[in-house]
Amino acid sequence: TAIKLLVLPGDGIGPEIMREVRHVIDWLESRRGLSFDITEDVVGGASLAEYGVPIRDEVIEKAWAADAVLFGSVGDPKWAHVGFEKRPEVAILKLRQELGLFANLRPAKVFDALIDASTLKPDVVRGLDIMIVRETVGGIYFGNPRGIETLPDGSKRGINTEVYTTAEIERVARVAFDLARKRSNRVCSVEKCNVMESGLLWKEVVTDVHAKEFPDVELSHMLADNCAMQMVRNPRQFDVIVTGNLFGDLLSDLASMLTGSLGMLPSATLGAVRENGKFPALYEPIHGSAPDIAGQGIANPIAQILSFAMLLRYSLNKQEEANMIEQAVSNVLESGLRTADIMSEGMARVGTSVMGEAIVRE
Amino acid sequence: TAIKLLVLPGDGIGPEIMREVRHVIDWLESRRGLSFDITEDVVGGASLAEYGVPIRDEVIEKAWAADAVLFGSVGDPKWAHVGFEKRPEVAILKLRQELGLFANLRPAKVFDALIDASTLKPDVVRGLDIMIVRETVGGIYFGNPRGIETLPDGSKRGINTEVYTTAEIERVARVAFDLARKRSNRVCSVEKCNVMESGLLWKEVVTDVHAKEFPDVELSHMLADNCAMQMVRNPRQFDVIVTGNLFGDLLSDLASMLTGSLGMLPSATLGAVRENGKFPALYEPIHGSAPDIAGQGIANPIAQILSFAMLLRYSLNKQEEANMIEQAVSNVLESGLRTADIMSEGMARVGTSVMGEAIVRE
Ligand SMILES: CC(C)[C@H](C(=O)O)[C@@H](O)C(=O)O
Ligand SMILES: CC(C)[C@H](C(=O)O)[C@@H](O)C(=O)O
Repeated sequence: TAIKLLVLPGDGIGPEIMREVRHVIDWLESRRGLSFDITEDVVGGASLAEYGVPIRDEVIEKAWAADAVLFGSVGDPKWAHVGFEKRPEVAILKLRQELGLFANLRPAKVFDALIDASTLKPDVVRGLDIMIVRETVGGIYFGNPRGIETLPDGSKRGINTEVYTTAEIERVARVAFDLARKRSNRVCSVEKCNVMESGLLWKEVVTDVHAKEFPDVELSHMLADNCAMQMVRNPRQFDVIVTGNLFGDLLSDLASMLTGSLGMLPSATLGAVRENGKFPALYEPIHGSAPDIAGQGIANPIAQILSFAMLLRYSLNKQEEANMIEQAVSNVLESGLRTADIMSEGMARVGTSVMGEAIVRE
Repeated sequence: TAIKLLVLPGDGIGPEIMREVRHVIDWLESRRGLSFDITEDVVGGASLAEYGVPIRDEVIEKAWAADAVLFGSVGDPKWAHVGFEKRPEVAILKLRQELGLFANLRPAKVFDALIDASTLKPDVVRGLDIMIVRETVGGIYFGNPRGIETLPDGSKRGINTEVYTTAEIERVARVAFDLARKRSNRVCSVEKCNVMESGLLWKEVVTDVHAKEFPDVELSHMLADNCAMQMVRNPRQFDVIVTGNLFGDLLSDLASMLTGSLGMLPSATLGAVRENGKFPALYEPIHGSAPDIAGQGIANPIAQILSFAMLLRYSLNKQEEANMIEQAVSNVLESGLRTADIMSEGMARVGTSVMGEAIVRE
């Protein structure tokens, strides 16, 4: 039976890089006998333009019905003044929350061929391979009370609430420990337990899960401010990092910038396993919608293509096909093709579609 | 009349680097005719050992009475299991809150002589000079409700609350804009207004203060995750950054690590101006208590000495003396003396007291 995919290109460069993934999918259908049943829809600014909301309930339902969601990116300065409830970002926040996509996996990996793209010295980042597991349906992103209230004197008060429960921490910790076993077997849990009680609970629960279920994995704890420093000082000390929604947002962006090539990095966001053994999952590049270069045909499609490879690997257990795609990307880089964002001296500069075609050819 | 200083060396390397500041003070008294009335007291682990609390009310009173507080650092793994209320960090949190020290100024500056100490490429950080203005008595550090509650089923829930009011944002924004005028006249305000209403209010209030009081300063806005990335990608784009307590904690540590020489960086935390024209102020190195090297006489005293120079500059308006100290530090570095943390090939490695003496001699 056909694999059901929901494809949501979103805003900015989303549509043009998604087009290259469609070529990869076509190839898999014609050459590897896979069969995909693809639905495409709009989210973010594109949905605001067409329907007046950043995401329709119908799209959420389609996401539930699909085997996996392939997401582009949302955000467009055109919609900057649309109000808090309607901003394009609501699309991704709602998808995470409604599908219960609690574990965001963000690999930060340095490609040998691109090591000079990093602003860090090559000796500091060579071979870097961090996996950040970020909690994505809890914490200060979704806690109540929240909002802006007007005080009697006319001045205002903005409030947000960070909440984490034992169960929320346990399930994301398990994802991190599980992943560590398939990697270098080390987890670093990150919070601000010296200032925040929610961080103190985080640390306690991770410690418990470790002792009871994963004593074979090496566990360490680090304060979030120190973690930000250590990522710059010596990023290779990390294997898997597990942390809450807000710290994960900053630290995963920081980690990916260490590689110098954001346009290369995919991510997966996974939900709880259902009775039928399936789990909801969304795959997206970690880079944004890059409105400044949208429509010019120069965007790097690799992060989007590697997000699709992650989809094959995690949601469909198609390890061989995932490996083929990752190998093709590697080969194309070795051959010297570069989009503008990763261009360096002596390499051949190409646009979005030439890069996409080259990967399909490989 | 004598200048009243409260000196709080704290834990770890605090006492040994503070000793070098005392030599600088002695020199100023004998050679520049300044007169200091110095009270010293214990905080953090040292206070826990002697009094069973991380800081006594008496110390807070002494801080109020002083013209300025010179702080070392607190934190000692010995006290890791002492409980949330009693941890050594309470000393600095209580000083900030009780004295109303709302604006933490953290310069991240690259010293030319130490440029190779950075893990970033020299071309990326040469001449780097960022001033982070971090709000320090509000936000999620102090908001209520907070705590860990036990649910009916025995599981737990950790809660913290981020709160910012118009007035709290206005006063710290003014500090940032004022500073920018004395520097490159640019302020970047950092929040997560796409996710947090408290960040949305932050952005609105900063925009208002700018329009009404500082239209001559260039203002930009940046999301905190993007800011973490931009600091790695191109840190020299920043002049003054103004942000809340939690983002400021991570971003200022990140910024200082870009310089590669934490042991060099001072900070100031300032409160509101009182009726007598004075304002409470605390000066401390941005590095921690470094318990691993405490008592060995190898710690770098420069951040502590430069914190004292900041004290002379901001609290006492002794620009000339502050310049002398900063110049002396520069000269000693140029002459090739290095403590272990900033050691590089061909330089002369020295301990805490030789470094301190060399600076006094200069
Ligand atoms: C778009 C935005 C709401 C989102 C977040 O803050 O989580 C993004 O920065 C991310 O990291 O996926
Ligand atoms: C010691 C700790 C409570 C403190 C903070 O988080 O503010 C420290 O990290 C700092 O940045 O001064």
